[in-house]
Amino acid sequence: MQVFETPSEMAAWARAVRDRGETIAFVPTMGYLHEGHLSLMREARERGQHLVASIFVNPLQFGANEDLDTYPRDAAGDAAKCRDVGVDVLFTPTKASLYPDGFQTTVQPGPIAGPLCGASRPGHFEGVCTIVLKLFNLVRPNVGVFGRKDYQQLAVLRRMARDFDVDVDVLGMPIVRESDGVAMSSRNARLGADQRTQAQVLHRALDLAESLVAAGERGVEAIVAAAAVLIREQPLADIDYVELVDADDLSTICDLEAPAVLALAVKFGSVRLIDNRVLTP
Amino acid sequence: MQVFETPSEMAAWARAVRDRGETIAFVPTMGYLHEGHLSLMREARERGQHLVASIFVNPLQFGANEDLDTYPRDAAGDAAKCRDVGVDVLFTPTKASLYPDGFQTTVQPGPIAGPLCGASRPGHFEGVCTIVLKLFNLVRPNVGVFGRKDYQQLAVLRRMARDFDVDVDVLGMPIVRESDGVAMSSRNARLGADQRTQAQVLHRALDLAESLVAAGERGVEAIVAAAAVLIREQPLADIDYVELVDADDLSTICDLEAPAVLALAVKFGSVRLIDNRVLTP
Repeated sequence: MQVFETPSEMAAWARAVRDRGETIAFVPTMGYLHEGHLSLMREARERGQHLVASIFVNPLQFGANEDLDTYPRDAAGDAAKCRDVGVDVLFTPTKASLYPDGFQTTVQPGPIAGPLCGASRPGHFEGVCTIVLKLFNLVRPNVGVFGRKDYQQLAVLRRMARDFDVDVDVLGMPIVRESDGVAMSSRNARLGADQRTQAQVLHRALDLAESLVAAGERGVEAIVAAAAVLIREQPLADIDYVELVDADDLSTICDLEAPAVLALAVKFGSVRLIDNRVLTP
Repeated sequence: MQVFETPSEMAAWARAVRDRGETIAFVPTMGYLHEGHLSLMREARERGQHLVASIFVNPLQFGANEDLDTYPRDAAGDAAKCRDVGVDVLFTPTKASLYPDGFQTTVQPGPIAGPLCGASRPGHFEGVCTIVLKLFNLVRPNVGVFGRKDYQQLAVLRRMARDFDVDVDVLGMPIVRESDGVAMSSRNARLGADQRTQAQVLHRALDLAESLVAAGERGVEAIVAAAAVLIREQPLADIDYVELVDADDLSTICDLEAPAVLALAVKFGSVRLIDNRVLTP
């Protein structure tokens, strides 16, 4: 496995590979890798002749009061996991190399970035889009592989790729869960024991909603209310949002007439977890 | 010369060329081609194995009260000129193909887009950056060739290319002038005879400023005032701005201590002309 720390090394390698007509599959991450990330890498391994992974905790997508400084990191462990899973190139750029003095141009996503995490985290998706566009330009992948846990992120990035005519196939992979159903997240490492137990309520709320829909419920208000009531039964759970929106453009809906995504963001202490499920009538 | 009207045809051609390791030079235009554009194409001809030109009057860079509807067009004449100058591929996309329903993601340039045309034309450089990024992604050039008449445009695009790690060399070429010194512009076609004569004052104001600097003047206020006084002597000239700013990042300066650009925007009736010159102490 080659490790590149500078954008210029990364770009030179990618340019040479693409000039030879070879393909690249890419998994961008913020590190502290778990089985969810590794499942993306295994999928990407099958999707291109070369597998590139990146680790960069992107300051541009964190708000002033968010957890940039406490975001968990494990550079040595991450590199070992990448090697084990068959990564060919690990790209670990510094903040100064990606955002040098004078940096000022950003990507402005549209209404799809407005609700859910876009409402809770102003500027978040501007930061996500900007770093992913930069990484796509440096890594030159044919395919970029993302997890569906960050459902809105995937939707916003797909929209960006279409709108900017970015020739990268943006692929979304299923959420990977712990044995107790909690969606894998680097942030789970920061949960206390009680918080960790109560965090199971997220997937149980999704299960409940799914069963309501299976039983014929179509009212968005009723589905959202049922999920929220269940979550509020956990004393350590502090709801950021529980919303059921159109699965394609994330617009508001009243009734479940087409695929919709039930998206949850719940804080346990300072740790904010997200989860989601697509509900189909 | 091949002509592509759809983004998918353009992208497929470019991808095949780049996958063979061959190079592409690109001149994006809004059409109604004049000698300025053709000089860019001749330069580009030398810079890549394949020469691509595009013609697209980009609605995203026009304000609500601007001249999108009256912008001059001559599709047949433009195609003939492109063929004569050696263009290999002419890309003439439609508005609906570049901005289909649901389009919503844009490029947000930073402070470099704030003064000059950025102040007079809110949203203009957001539109310019967005279309150029899209065209770069479709055409995949190694080099993009632009005219220095649109000085701020060139600066904003170079900044975008650096900030987004776009692997395109953004090249700026000298302003091409008519025999009477007026900078070539598609908009010149819309000037009346008296306006056309009086428009010569733009390059005379630049000459005057240059001679003042050569004589030792370093005060920005004095240089700007002299240029503005000269322009105001022409009764049909309506100044939008006359500004002398840092040549690199377009920031405000008080004294001429490093290369600076004197930038002019002057309206003659409904026709807004721009011109500029870099002044070096």
